[in-house]
Amino acid sequence: MKDIAFVLYPGFTILDMVGPLQVLSALAAFDPQYRTVVLGEDGGPVGTDTPLGVTASHTFDEVPEPYAVFVPGGGVPTIAALGDEKLLDRIRAMADHAEIVGSVCTGSLILGAAGLLDGRRATTHWMCRHLLPKFGATPVAERWVRDGKVVTAAGVAAGIDMALFMVQELAGEDVARQVQLLIEYDPQPPLGGIDWADVDIAARRPLVDGWLQAGLADHPELLADLAG
Amino acid sequence: MKDIAFVLYPGFTILDMVGPLQVLSALAAFDPQYRTVVLGEDGGPVGTDTPLGVTASHTFDEVPEPYAVFVPGGGVPTIAALGDEKLLDRIRAMADHAEIVGSVCTGSLILGAAGLLDGRRATTHWMCRHLLPKFGATPVAERWVRDGKVVTAAGVAAGIDMALFMVQELAGEDVARQVQLLIEYDPQPPLGGIDWADVDIAARRPLVDGWLQAGLADHPELLADLAG
Repeated sequence: MKDIAFVLYPGFTILDMVGPLQVLSALAAFDPQYRTVVLGEDGGPVGTDTPLGVTASHTFDEVPEPYAVFVPGGGVPTIAALGDEKLLDRIRAMADHAEIVGSVCTGSLILGAAGLLDGRRATTHWMCRHLLPKFGATPVAERWVRDGKVVTAAGVAAGIDMALFMVQELAGEDVARQVQLLIEYDPQPPLGGIDWADVDIAARRPLVDGWLQAGLADHPELLADLAG
Repeated sequence: MKDIAFVLYPGFTILDMVGPLQVLSALAAFDPQYRTVVLGEDGGPVGTDTPLGVTASHTFDEVPEPYAVFVPGGGVPTIAALGDEKLLDRIRAMADHAEIVGSVCTGSLILGAAGLLDGRRATTHWMCRHLLPKFGATPVAERWVRDGKVVTAAGVAAGIDMALFMVQELAGEDVARQVQLLIEYDPQPPLGGIDWADVDIAARRPLVDGWLQAGLADHPELLADLAG
């Protein structure tokens, strides 16, 4: 059994996890050698960035060596997680054994804080790409980036695209098309795609700096490093 | 305060809810007259179609008259919900007062079973469109369909597109673009969109019939009506 694990921590962005979880759970339905699991410190409810609470299916101790591990991102709570050594230890331990280490959105910053992006190409939410070099990574403005066993997705909804790519890699194009059909992923954004030429990324820097200040108030050294 | 409510029931498809929940929670962040809530019978964990469990933010009794109510879909558990009179009563009561009554995927069948689609154009997951006329609805093969106060989305991932359309309706194009940018919804399916000319919808009929048999074993009259 190859376990595909998703990591819970308080306040994460729910769609970062649920997009890939839905896609990879469909893979598991088509190919029973895979099983998706959601891991937390215990079985208690964990808050998200929405009013929905969530609960893990297993504790970290119950699934210490998953085949793949995915880390969701978020705003201030994800920045705070960069200073959570217990969580980083959990992720490092799983990443040691895993064949695939993945993230969605600012989840890549957590991979970075765990030392897993050093020397790798990676991506993250468009507002935070400037932070990737702080962890030794080369930021790439792509929908998803694979470098060795590490695959990082851009912001939030990009996790769906990244997960379909993983299904294609793991089980082939036919299964990937079946999964896409099952979840009817035939996107029609009402206003079309994002026009990046119209997006002033630098203008969002103060917002991200505010997240850093709020999330790392108790970790002045890390804050100075990232905000500097 | 205008409450945008999402309805929990056991075994629903998690992305059906989380797509619109993420989008409409971002609307609430931009426009504080809106608040998203997740409603259940009690505060206990509810299972989904994945290993992730979820918990409501409020009970149905705590938010009896939301401004908008959205019902997610699923497979066999959603079919079973068609015979859950207590749940249908809850949804009917909320729909009476709501300005917007919505669904994602086979959630529209639940709206239908609650008597809310009679005489309306509606959509659902592509595999289940033939069931809509059983509830007096006219099936439409579109990404989302608005008819009066009822808005229905196609399968699973279509809820994201439908919710962005709702943001545009409620708060205008600028806010809809900001929300889209925040969740980086700039879809790039690795294998492109779905080629519907290649999809044999009739071939899936036995699968759907199996769902009906499994979900409505205790409701032979409803089963006979829907499977006939």
